[in-house]
Amino acid sequence: MGPVDAAATDWHRVLAPRSVALVGATGRADNPMARPLRWLTERGFAGRVHPVNPKYDELGGVPCAPSLADVPGGVDLVLALVPAERAAATVTEAGAAGAAAVIVFASGFAEVGDEGRARQEELVAAARAAGTRVLGPNCQGLYDARSRLFATFTGAGERPLTGSSGIAYVGQSGAIGGAVLDVAAERGLDLSAWVSTGNEADVTLTEVGRHLVADPDVSVLAVYAESLPDPGDYAALAAEAAAEGTALVVLRSGRSAPGRRAAVSHTGAMLGDDTAFTLVSRRFGVVLVDDVEELLAAATMLRGRHGRRRPTGRSVGLVTSSGGAGILAADRASEAGLAVPELDERTQAKLGRLVPAFGAVANPVDVTAQLFNDGGSFGEVCGIVRADPHVDAVLVLLTMLVGEAADALARDLAATVAEQGPDAPPVAVVWMAGEDGTAPARAVLRAAGVPVFSSIALAVRVLDAVAAGPGAAPAPLDALDPVPGDGWDLLDALGVRRPRSAISTDPAHTAAAVAELGGRAVLKTEGLPHKTEAGAVRLDVPTDAAASVHAELAALPGATGVLVQERVPDGVELLVSVDGGRDGWPPVLTVGHGGTATEVHRDVVHALAPVTPATARSMLASLRCWPLLAGHRGAPGADLDAAVDAIVRLSRAAGLPGLAELEVNPLVLPPARSTSLASTLALDARIATRSDPRHAGQAVAVDVLRTET
Amino acid sequence: MGPVDAAATDWHRVLAPRSVALVGATGRADNPMARPLRWLTERGFAGRVHPVNPKYDELGGVPCAPSLADVPGGVDLVLALVPAERAAATVTEAGAAGAAAVIVFASGFAEVGDEGRARQEELVAAARAAGTRVLGPNCQGLYDARSRLFATFTGAGERPLTGSSGIAYVGQSGAIGGAVLDVAAERGLDLSAWVSTGNEADVTLTEVGRHLVADPDVSVLAVYAESLPDPGDYAALAAEAAAEGTALVVLRSGRSAPGRRAAVSHTGAMLGDDTAFTLVSRRFGVVLVDDVEELLAAATMLRGRHGRRRPTGRSVGLVTSSGGAGILAADRASEAGLAVPELDERTQAKLGRLVPAFGAVANPVDVTAQLFNDGGSFGEVCGIVRADPHVDAVLVLLTMLVGEAADALARDLAATVAEQGPDAPPVAVVWMAGEDGTAPARAVLRAAGVPVFSSIALAVRVLDAVAAGPGAAPAPLDALDPVPGDGWDLLDALGVRRPRSAISTDPAHTAAAVAELGGRAVLKTEGLPHKTEAGAVRLDVPTDAAASVHAELAALPGATGVLVQERVPDGVELLVSVDGGRDGWPPVLTVGHGGTATEVHRDVVHALAPVTPATARSMLASLRCWPLLAGHRGAPGADLDAAVDAIVRLSRAAGLPGLAELEVNPLVLPPARSTSLASTLALDARIATRSDPRHAGQAVAVDVLRTET
Repeated sequence: MGPVDAAATDWHRVLAPRSVALVGATGRADNPMARPLRWLTERGFAGRVHPVNPKYDELGGVPCAPSLADVPGGVDLVLALVPAERAAATVTEAGAAGAAAVIVFASGFAEVGDEGRARQEELVAAARAAGTRVLGPNCQGLYDARSRLFATFTGAGERPLTGSSGIAYVGQSGAIGGAVLDVAAERGLDLSAWVSTGNEADVTLTEVGRHLVADPDVSVLAVYAESLPDPGDYAALAAEAAAEGTALVVLRSGRSAPGRRAAVSHTGAMLGDDTAFTLVSRRFGVVLVDDVEELLAAATMLRGRHGRRRPTGRSVGLVTSSGGAGILAADRASEAGLAVPELDERTQAKLGRLVPAFGAVANPVDVTAQLFNDGGSFGEVCGIVRADPHVDAVLVLLTMLVGEAADALARDLAATVAEQGPDAPPVAVVWMAGEDGTAPARAVLRAAGVPVFSSIALAVRVLDAVAAGPGAAPAPLDALDPVPGDGWDLLDALGVRRPRSAISTDPAHTAAAVAELGGRAVLKTEGLPHKTEAGAVRLDVPTDAAASVHAELAALPGATGVLVQERVPDGVELLVSVDGGRDGWPPVLTVGHGGTATEVHRDVVHALAPVTPATARSMLASLRCWPLLAGHRGAPGADLDAAVDAIVRLSRAAGLPGLAELEVNPLVLPPARSTSLASTLALDARIATRSDPRHAGQAVAVDVLRTET
Repeated sequence: MGPVDAAATDWHRVLAPRSVALVGATGRADNPMARPLRWLTERGFAGRVHPVNPKYDELGGVPCAPSLADVPGGVDLVLALVPAERAAATVTEAGAAGAAAVIVFASGFAEVGDEGRARQEELVAAARAAGTRVLGPNCQGLYDARSRLFATFTGAGERPLTGSSGIAYVGQSGAIGGAVLDVAAERGLDLSAWVSTGNEADVTLTEVGRHLVADPDVSVLAVYAESLPDPGDYAALAAEAAAEGTALVVLRSGRSAPGRRAAVSHTGAMLGDDTAFTLVSRRFGVVLVDDVEELLAAATMLRGRHGRRRPTGRSVGLVTSSGGAGILAADRASEAGLAVPELDERTQAKLGRLVPAFGAVANPVDVTAQLFNDGGSFGEVCGIVRADPHVDAVLVLLTMLVGEAADALARDLAATVAEQGPDAPPVAVVWMAGEDGTAPARAVLRAAGVPVFSSIALAVRVLDAVAAGPGAAPAPLDALDPVPGDGWDLLDALGVRRPRSAISTDPAHTAAAVAELGGRAVLKTEGLPHKTEAGAVRLDVPTDAAASVHAELAALPGATGVLVQERVPDGVELLVSVDGGRDGWPPVLTVGHGGTATEVHRDVVHALAPVTPATARSMLASLRCWPLLAGHRGAPGADLDAAVDAIVRLSRAAGLPGLAELEVNPLVLPPARSTSLASTLALDARIATRSDPRHAGQAVAVDVLRTET
């Protein structure tokens, strides 16, 4: 099957069709498949609706056509309410009728094994041949609140949908999608659009997502992704969302090992590399969440906050009427790495005129119950905190304020928020009281764009997720000429320094080489994979011992010669590795505390490769071993400029065709003040390439070209 | 004020009094202080109720006494509904009337500054003199569902309370307590007892808690603690809860630095050491949670599950009708360190007969929507998973099952759970659908003891918290005789080996000492605090160079002599420190990756001191640097028996009177196979004691007796 020109698909004909045909429409009201016809006829859909079924003359008062060919006036969208074995024929007929797309609801395709997989391939072939698109199969369809198009049978659709919250959803799973739809609607947030892509035989969630983030009515796109078979499409979706100022919130499943095991049995989709997914997401400011509750909470927080209206930093102002709630919020924020800064002196002075003396004005701001007894304005207090120059977001903690007092507070706070305008830092409320006593107040706040949570921990997790701004973009990826030879040649091509060395098979040559390297050198057996364990490395061998050490090393089983290597100064040892991109994800650079205890320290950071010098420097600064690099307990630090230069150069290995991985460990950084010795040296390098460069981007066996460990 | 004999307080007279007097009862119905009288007269309280106020003849149809002395028939409990300045007098009168306790609601005491603090001291003095107890001041009182005693004005009490869930609450904050009460009741979980202790001038939450955990009707005690001024009382509460099989769930605030700052301004209470708090809690299986939502969720999970009915391990079986939900749960469980093991072969075979072939039976178990279409039993599937030998708890993930289908599933699952009995692993449900469509089903499950959550992440966090069983008990704490001299003498007394050494002020003596130590030794300047940084340490000095090195070291400013020290072999370096107990918390042992990069590795674990050999060994095994100790990449491991012995011996320093801290860094563990050299050696020791041993347990300045770094 060749690629389809997704850009040519007219999504307007799919999401706001002039006419919808329901092939296989049923008259049995208790069948979930009867829902689309009922909803399309009863809920104000403006287009024409055509049930298609030779068994009926009419259904639900609507004339029924015997076949798609008999539908008068053309068809934009076809719902295939037919069994799996009839789906391909329906697609062919839909194409003939000029439909822009067919939604195939039936299961029994790739998710059930080989036979189903063949059936799915037939389905796609039929669509390509007929010039139409397929949503599904094994999906729950879609709806669009603006056009009142209900082309789904999800049980969550039974709930009357009236508004349009500006939040749209797209995801593979109809079950998770149904949960998102139902819970959002119960909270007064009707989704603007909702799409379940199922098996994604043709239309993918990234394609739908790219259409939705460009929709001016959509301020947040919530995504549930079980698989992202085309990482480039995902990156494009994230980039376009960022460019449009539409918030993208993604719940990706199968990120852990047991989750992946379950995902493979569930969707048959191979999951890509989680590190690259995280880096691509962070680059474009995508908000990553951990479950449906967080997906909705983050969407609620970001709703209507296009572009720069998101928090621009990680400092939160806390305002509460209960000291205890303020302390808990400060605890959770601090654990999440959010700052709870002392407020500006002028802010504190202003607050001091409103807050009783036994309250608190530093942050958290504790207005005490007395404020309400005195008729003070809670909204005014929140407004003052929101205007503080150190505050990027305001979290309000409320406990047992219910009934009329709650309504009054909500109106007061909503008025202040509206007055300050949408460009002020976002405000969110945690209300720790029953829903029943606070429902009208919550609705008032929601209408003012103030999300209301029930859990401090959840609100803080969401603030943490949305406060992480866009990450660094990688440096341009320049293709390298293929490097003949081994890892050392690649280092030479990149301009990364390594110790001078020579390979010798003769004891006398070895002694001469040691003499040339200053009278002392490192000797290693060539041809063994794990040299340290095999006793095949001798440090600091003087010229007069070189011949006898050569004899010992050359006698090791498997030895092919002896490597004579320049000594290097002591220094901090780093691990630097570059992968060439896995499963279609972009290349990733890893920098960590290296040496023989790499697995012990587990102190690594990642970035998209190649990196700029600024990114390389911030990677070093975020390592736990940074004090060793910067200078620690009176010891001198490393030459950071040289280290950054080496890391930037190594990261350019990402441009090597067919690269699987280049790993340098250790990269030695001697003290900055060390004298004549080279300042940054790669001591060992390991390079692996894919056996065939044409397979780059796929998971294939790798050939180890050379190992120096 | 002397201590009070808490054991002598008759809590039955407080929580189920024969008579209650309300001093300062008000006739103004809109005043919150009118609530207790209304609730006591209208809600079935069986005891006598006596409003006391000279301004009224009767209130709410109940005769009003002019003073406490005029109340006929004696008084068990007095509610002081009076301003702060009248509270002490009321306490005196209550004592005279024979009351067991007085609840002082008014604020205006220690929480408002010095004047209030003096007033609070008067209040306690009055109670001691009158032989009665005080709950509060600045509290919201208490209620007991069994005796229908509503001695509180919390707004949450307006909600009709009918049942008794077996969950009790005690906490300082009335606001947080009100939130707990209100949200629990909205979820159909009326608390059995509820107590707000406010400023805790006399009665503390630990005292109330110790009474409640012994109550056979209480299966879970939920605690909110802003301060725990007597850690010994907290340990006793935790121990008694464990002994009674009552689950203790604790939300402690002020655990982070910003939280502590806020807590100090809120309560004025000094918070103790969080590490010791965590260790004491873990020792007795206390469940620690992070917010009110988790407090309630954990209490719900543990409700009715006395003693061994809690999960006995960390393996969770996942059952779902939506593959996506199963994957998400597996992701979250795996991140939380819970296992999602493949189910037993026999379990999978049994499931295979019920679950469609395109579902999954390994774990997560995905029954697919087909199971419901086929009329299969979801309860039976859950029962089979619950009976699997590898499963300690079952988590059921449901999405858009609503209405009658939801009710049927809930009845089916509830029947299976009841049939298998309460000793089978706990079952919890995450239902990702609106409350309105699932409320009856949720109620059915709740009645069967199956908690229902809305968030996967929350359910997993709670499973994680309740699955952590009791931790290790410390070894017996034997008092050490005070050790004269310095840290080295303490090490000698503990039997921990250190390098042989001598102090010399003469170059010739230094050379002789080096010769005696085998011809090479380490030389250090005496009298300097940071020797490495000052260049005051010389390794591996031969006898013939000793005199000249001595001269250099002795010339450093501040030098008082030269330490000549036995060389020690290379090896893994540990940090071992013992504190003597901070702020009344028990002593804590810290073991970590040591040496000069201690702050870099940040690889430490803690345990209550002294430790047993088993605890010492498991501490080592849980360090990141464990591979270095166990043997790594072909290198030999350390002599673990010797390391464990040294750690156990060092941990006994906890018994030294007045110890602030003993820190050994490094404790060197050479390779197990190294030959003649000592196997475990303390190279440097630092000891700090409190300036006056009588102040042990309080935060006071410490004197550094000796530093060897």
